[in-house]
Amino acid sequence: MKSHKAPKGLFVGVDVGGTKVAVLVVDAGYQVCGYTNVATLLDGPQKTLAGIAGAIRRGVELAGASMSDVSAVGLGVPGRVDPKTGLVRQAVNLGWEELQAGEMLSAQLGVPCLLENDVRLAALGVQRHLGTASSQNMAYVSIGTGIAAGLVLNGRIYRGAHGMAGEIGHMIVDPNGPLCLCGAHGCLEALAAGPAIARLGEEAAKAEGDTLLRNYLPMTAKAVYEAATAGDAAARAIVRQVSRYLALALQHLIVTYDVERIVLGGGVARDRDAFLQPILTELERLWQDSMLAGETLQPDMIGLLPLDYDAGTWGAVVLASGSLARVHPPLPEIREGGEELQSIYVI
Amino acid sequence: MKSHKAPKGLFVGVDVGGTKVAVLVVDAGYQVCGYTNVATLLDGPQKTLAGIAGAIRRGVELAGASMSDVSAVGLGVPGRVDPKTGLVRQAVNLGWEELQAGEMLSAQLGVPCLLENDVRLAALGVQRHLGTASSQNMAYVSIGTGIAAGLVLNGRIYRGAHGMAGEIGHMIVDPNGPLCLCGAHGCLEALAAGPAIARLGEEAAKAEGDTLLRNYLPMTAKAVYEAATAGDAAARAIVRQVSRYLALALQHLIVTYDVERIVLGGGVARDRDAFLQPILTELERLWQDSMLAGETLQPDMIGLLPLDYDAGTWGAVVLASGSLARVHPPLPEIREGGEELQSIYVI
Repeated sequence: MKSHKAPKGLFVGVDVGGTKVAVLVVDAGYQVCGYTNVATLLDGPQKTLAGIAGAIRRGVELAGASMSDVSAVGLGVPGRVDPKTGLVRQAVNLGWEELQAGEMLSAQLGVPCLLENDVRLAALGVQRHLGTASSQNMAYVSIGTGIAAGLVLNGRIYRGAHGMAGEIGHMIVDPNGPLCLCGAHGCLEALAAGPAIARLGEEAAKAEGDTLLRNYLPMTAKAVYEAATAGDAAARAIVRQVSRYLALALQHLIVTYDVERIVLGGGVARDRDAFLQPILTELERLWQDSMLAGETLQPDMIGLLPLDYDAGTWGAVVLASGSLARVHPPLPEIREGGEELQSIYVI
Repeated sequence: MKSHKAPKGLFVGVDVGGTKVAVLVVDAGYQVCGYTNVATLLDGPQKTLAGIAGAIRRGVELAGASMSDVSAVGLGVPGRVDPKTGLVRQAVNLGWEELQAGEMLSAQLGVPCLLENDVRLAALGVQRHLGTASSQNMAYVSIGTGIAAGLVLNGRIYRGAHGMAGEIGHMIVDPNGPLCLCGAHGCLEALAAGPAIARLGEEAAKAEGDTLLRNYLPMTAKAVYEAATAGDAAARAIVRQVSRYLALALQHLIVTYDVERIVLGGGVARDRDAFLQPILTELERLWQDSMLAGETLQPDMIGLLPLDYDAGTWGAVVLASGSLARVHPPLPEIREGGEELQSIYVI
């Protein structure tokens, strides 16, 4: 997607993952001008940041533009992010304990860089995809190595008091359940995220009885869904149990937040129908007899993120463009050194 | 609290319950001018409405004023309320299936009457009590005949897509639990609201083994807490079980909403320390080993509504005064017939 025009007023959306950095470049009308993704460099925070900056420059170059054409960059980061200061904490997959990533990237690129938690930005990207009319109150739930929800409430990202809203992976759903990485027992994540599914698959493969799961070592969540689709009883039992916990969590999201749409994504959701259908079945079984369900459980209420839609980078683009519109006072001149960039973090 | 001045610009806050109607009258500076409460008339919607209107007139009279001194009335109603139209549905305790209560009261009183769900208005009243600085994101949880939460998020009442946000009484916390009135099994309400506690007490009183609970028939939730405080083993076991379910629900509220304060009220919470302490103990036991708890479980985070603070009527006063300020276009002249009042429901 290379263009030799050099449009002004570009926005860049970046999804920083533990494996890859994806960069989307759009013009002021949200037309795609460039896209790239590169492997995440994990040899220390400085290298990771330099890698991100390099990916952004590369994306802008592919758009036939230069950094001076860019109005702002939005970045989704897997960790605790203070969107006002650009400070990132506990980005475990990047190895960042605490990093002034927003300031450092803004200085390196000479362009305002706005940061937010990656799942929250993906929720914003999903909202753009659904159309805001039907998604003023919605949740994007990512099920992968961990489980988290990004929430749009009353049309805006909801962060909570400490930026921890949507940490549904740590809802305790079975107090007698297995130990979670967070230290508690029976968190949703310890029962239904990718590693938990793989662990259950491995246990089943090692247990007595015939199962296709023995053909899949080392075990993955994907293997469990594959075996279940092939009709394997042990795999189906695991999928049923996992789906029941996920259905409970969705039921809680619905009655607490009263969202009108829930979109599921993340690595485990890539197993598509094999993943979604058992959750819907369990949710109906748990809840269909409740009069509350009649009003809320619409057929298209819960869906999957389309595989060809990159919600993370689109949400980051929305952050870059939307936040700029709300900046007050007007943006300072952008200089290479970036000393004057801090003021734009006042949102 | 009678005054013979007749100040202008009064606001009236009304808490409509299944047992009584409480009316608070304040001036523009939020100084209390009058207060009254009367028994709720339950001989049909028209009588109930007439009783509410009568209680309001009585409160205003006690304030030494007349209805023409009242700028607006806010009312908290136990049911599904559309605050834009004043339509009330499913107000089971009032026997209203569907009623244009806002329009009808506005017409009867010749004053704009704004309606909202009672628990949501109580949350607004609690926020006023705490001070908005420390309660931009907070939940008021009412535990009585039912269980529901009123939520203030980003400083404002949060309603959700269908006005059902905060229906935490219908979180399914034990899919194998008892049948709930809503039709599902194992809702929080079916396990931990007043009637559920009384039922458990009655079962224990009828079972083998020595228990003080035999002295308390017919059984109430209050009796169970009393017996537990007196050291009765059977009652203590019930309180422990109920508290564990409530602790789980609070943990879910904290990780999903990331609220900074949770205030507990309602009939069952009137048992004060006997009610609160076991919940805090269970919450610590469930969650204290989690690193997330370290950041959120502050000692004063969860508290009880003061018994001498009427959160419901204060929240209704806030609705009456706050909504008025946001009315656009300006309020029409208020006439006895009330035909021009509908426009103020545009909030």
